[in-house]
Amino acid sequence: MIRSIQESPLYPIVNPKSIAFFGASNTFMRMGSIMLSSMQALGYEGEIYPIHLTEKEVRGRKAYTSVMDLPEVPDLAIIVLPTEIVCQTMDDCGKKGIKHAIVVSGGFREAGPEGVEMQKKLEAIALKYGIRFLGPNCLGVANPHIKLNPTPIQAEGPPGFVGLASQSGSFITQMFDYLHRHGMGFSAALSVGNEANIDIVDCMEYLGACPNTKVITLYIEGIARGKKFIETAKAITARKPIVALYVGGSEAGKNAGRSHTGSLSGPNEIYDGMFRQCGIIRAQTLTELFDYALALGTLPRPLGNRIIIQTHSGGPGATAADACGRAGLALPPLSSETLEKLKPLIPKTASTANPVDMTFSKNPAEDYFNIPDILLQEKNADMLLAYFLSPGLFIERILKEMDVPAESIHAEMDKLITQYASTFFSLTKLHPDKPIIGFTYRSLQERMVRFLLDQGVPIYQDPERAARSIAAVLEYHKMQDGITEAS
Amino acid sequence: MIRSIQESPLYPIVNPKSIAFFGASNTFMRMGSIMLSSMQALGYEGEIYPIHLTEKEVRGRKAYTSVMDLPEVPDLAIIVLPTEIVCQTMDDCGKKGIKHAIVVSGGFREAGPEGVEMQKKLEAIALKYGIRFLGPNCLGVANPHIKLNPTPIQAEGPPGFVGLASQSGSFITQMFDYLHRHGMGFSAALSVGNEANIDIVDCMEYLGACPNTKVITLYIEGIARGKKFIETAKAITARKPIVALYVGGSEAGKNAGRSHTGSLSGPNEIYDGMFRQCGIIRAQTLTELFDYALALGTLPRPLGNRIIIQTHSGGPGATAADACGRAGLALPPLSSETLEKLKPLIPKTASTANPVDMTFSKNPAEDYFNIPDILLQEKNADMLLAYFLSPGLFIERILKEMDVPAESIHAEMDKLITQYASTFFSLTKLHPDKPIIGFTYRSLQERMVRFLLDQGVPIYQDPERAARSIAAVLEYHKMQDGITEAS
Repeated sequence: MIRSIQESPLYPIVNPKSIAFFGASNTFMRMGSIMLSSMQALGYEGEIYPIHLTEKEVRGRKAYTSVMDLPEVPDLAIIVLPTEIVCQTMDDCGKKGIKHAIVVSGGFREAGPEGVEMQKKLEAIALKYGIRFLGPNCLGVANPHIKLNPTPIQAEGPPGFVGLASQSGSFITQMFDYLHRHGMGFSAALSVGNEANIDIVDCMEYLGACPNTKVITLYIEGIARGKKFIETAKAITARKPIVALYVGGSEAGKNAGRSHTGSLSGPNEIYDGMFRQCGIIRAQTLTELFDYALALGTLPRPLGNRIIIQTHSGGPGATAADACGRAGLALPPLSSETLEKLKPLIPKTASTANPVDMTFSKNPAEDYFNIPDILLQEKNADMLLAYFLSPGLFIERILKEMDVPAESIHAEMDKLITQYASTFFSLTKLHPDKPIIGFTYRSLQERMVRFLLDQGVPIYQDPERAARSIAAVLEYHKMQDGITEAS
Repeated sequence: MIRSIQESPLYPIVNPKSIAFFGASNTFMRMGSIMLSSMQALGYEGEIYPIHLTEKEVRGRKAYTSVMDLPEVPDLAIIVLPTEIVCQTMDDCGKKGIKHAIVVSGGFREAGPEGVEMQKKLEAIALKYGIRFLGPNCLGVANPHIKLNPTPIQAEGPPGFVGLASQSGSFITQMFDYLHRHGMGFSAALSVGNEANIDIVDCMEYLGACPNTKVITLYIEGIARGKKFIETAKAITARKPIVALYVGGSEAGKNAGRSHTGSLSGPNEIYDGMFRQCGIIRAQTLTELFDYALALGTLPRPLGNRIIIQTHSGGPGATAADACGRAGLALPPLSSETLEKLKPLIPKTASTANPVDMTFSKNPAEDYFNIPDILLQEKNADMLLAYFLSPGLFIERILKEMDVPAESIHAEMDKLITQYASTFFSLTKLHPDKPIIGFTYRSLQERMVRFLLDQGVPIYQDPERAARSIAAVLEYHKMQDGITEAS
């Protein structure tokens, strides 16, 4: 295991100060040009040296005919060229003294016997010069913390805490928007492609040492270095959670993976055992992968599995209770102290069983502070799950009824909702040991929920997703204890 | 079983021409006022007669001191009054000759022994006058097809084909936005509350006969009339699908249901058996309930379980393959005829295994017509599942690169994307026997997907949700065959 992130061969690949870029031109509809344009759009601040045989300038930057002409030895080469000239280019990079590369080009192991030979040749060249590289047949890396995004799709949303090491490039380049909409962002994302030189284990090790990464997510079609994977994952999960989506376990998934990256998969049971052994949480879908990451990256360790559900609607409360029950969470009854404190704040028709169903708001401000505050003080419970309907729906109507001019309504609403959201958020500081989670059936982009997501309060679009994510957090800490005790 | 919708006691409740409204006033922050305001907002075109002891006018409409003073006998009474005066009001309605009512007021069976007595009294009064009523402790109905929404939350989105009968009022009033965002709308939604007079079986029967309803969804905390439920559901599922979310099967869900509507639940296994016996698809979550409804309400009956996955990204293709495999779908290889037809349209690096991974678009117009058209002609497959990334992402960048003025870019994009979406949609007409389903990890509100959702092409936010929804369609038809053969 590496002791610091700088020891990883990936450090200069994820944090380059200068890049030689092969394959970008002034014709936009080329993969290389599109990738360079993404990098420019995010505003990478290091040096970019386009290498081009004929162009003097590429996308506004001075271009060089050969890598040999560069004024310095760049930290990294990004190669987006036709398969046939990749090996020669790698050799040129080696001669220049470049030690790190990303080979985006495909047509290697995944493309049949000829490709296999080509890949061997590429590996030999790298070995000769001591070059460490990602790929081939990958989309490289994204490191939004240094505004680095040389992938074909523009980055959206701010950087975050989710590290991703993926055997699919799509999940590096196509998930910016998804993560942002769900309250997350990448700390760093690595696409490993054919793993000729650097594999998913190296990436996991890098993310384990990466200070921006609070939780590691893996997309796996097949693991080659099983023993090293287990050893590395074990060391990481003792202090940082890992969630893995493995698709090679079904016949259909196995075949898809084989034609995608040529990787070797194995039966679900073997992977399940391997994941369990090293404290990795398994996700069955991409939705679960990032749902679990959100909870693992934001919530404190719960002291137990006892949860209180706060709702103002019976049905959503009952679906949440059912989901929590199925996820192995317990719904304790409220203590008499808590009941006493709640009494003055809730309507007569409210239910103080768990779910606590306020039926309607006597005062919305209390729904977002006093009531959950009392529930979080409950000594018999470890967590709070709150249902969010949009307060905007009601506030807008009330303001209209009060004849507030249309143009002021939205500003007033925003102010009020932000105020409610801030007070709700303050509960996470008041009760730092008790996880607070939300669910809603409305869009996550409505102001109150969006505000809370941006502050790191996990809110899900179904109580099932919330309950399973909490269960993942409990499972992680349970496995962590087991691993820590054993080691 | 009723032979026409007019025979149902619910017909005048869901399709009233005139309503006596009890409990609305000029004070907005009262449940009755809020409900009347929702109804006014959607623009219900029938007569509304507010009844109020002191006000001469309520929310701009002439108010009446007593129901006896009304100029006609209204089709329906909606009662949103304090518990104590509900019985007297029902009696007044009876005297006036009103035959149908919705009792929104709570404080009956769900509220303990006194409430039980009060509910018995209410039932007796209704019986005496031959009044059929929904509730008490319910949110009544929504029928967006006649702009009727007397629930506390304003309706959003157009009417649709999803009928809902629910033991939670929240799911009537709080799901307009959810359904619209996911490409659906209510045909009619009924909240049954304590089911004192009309129960969920009556509602299911009504929806079975309702011509606007293509699929029936049920939210169940507990069924009282088991035998009648089975008999009615069996008759309906022979021609119309029913999906049920039952939350009373877990200990937590059972307790939540009891304090919500006082209903009696039973073990999961009993409900599972009951649902299977009458051809009802069971959903475990609200997300599944409406996911299945979308597929069941839009897709033709598949001829078999063989599906082709079309993607331009390996990872999303592999996750989709894995999800399809787990959902019991088969991924057949493409026939040589299909391979021959595809060849000129896809890049060399594309994979023509199933998933068909185009890797990138040679011509985006072909991704949305020629390629899926060829895949739909494949004789070895019954369905197509297509991955949608936002074409807008690329088109915007290309137009920018072409120096198209910023103000024209969005109009141009919209035009192009609508064109792609229309040609894709035309495939559903060209191949009416083969279900076409989509999935995306981006927002459903982006233009292309939104256009397709609005046309009735089901697109899901995860391939797992798509695969399971297809499996629900297959299961429905399989059960339907079994039931039809047996009867």
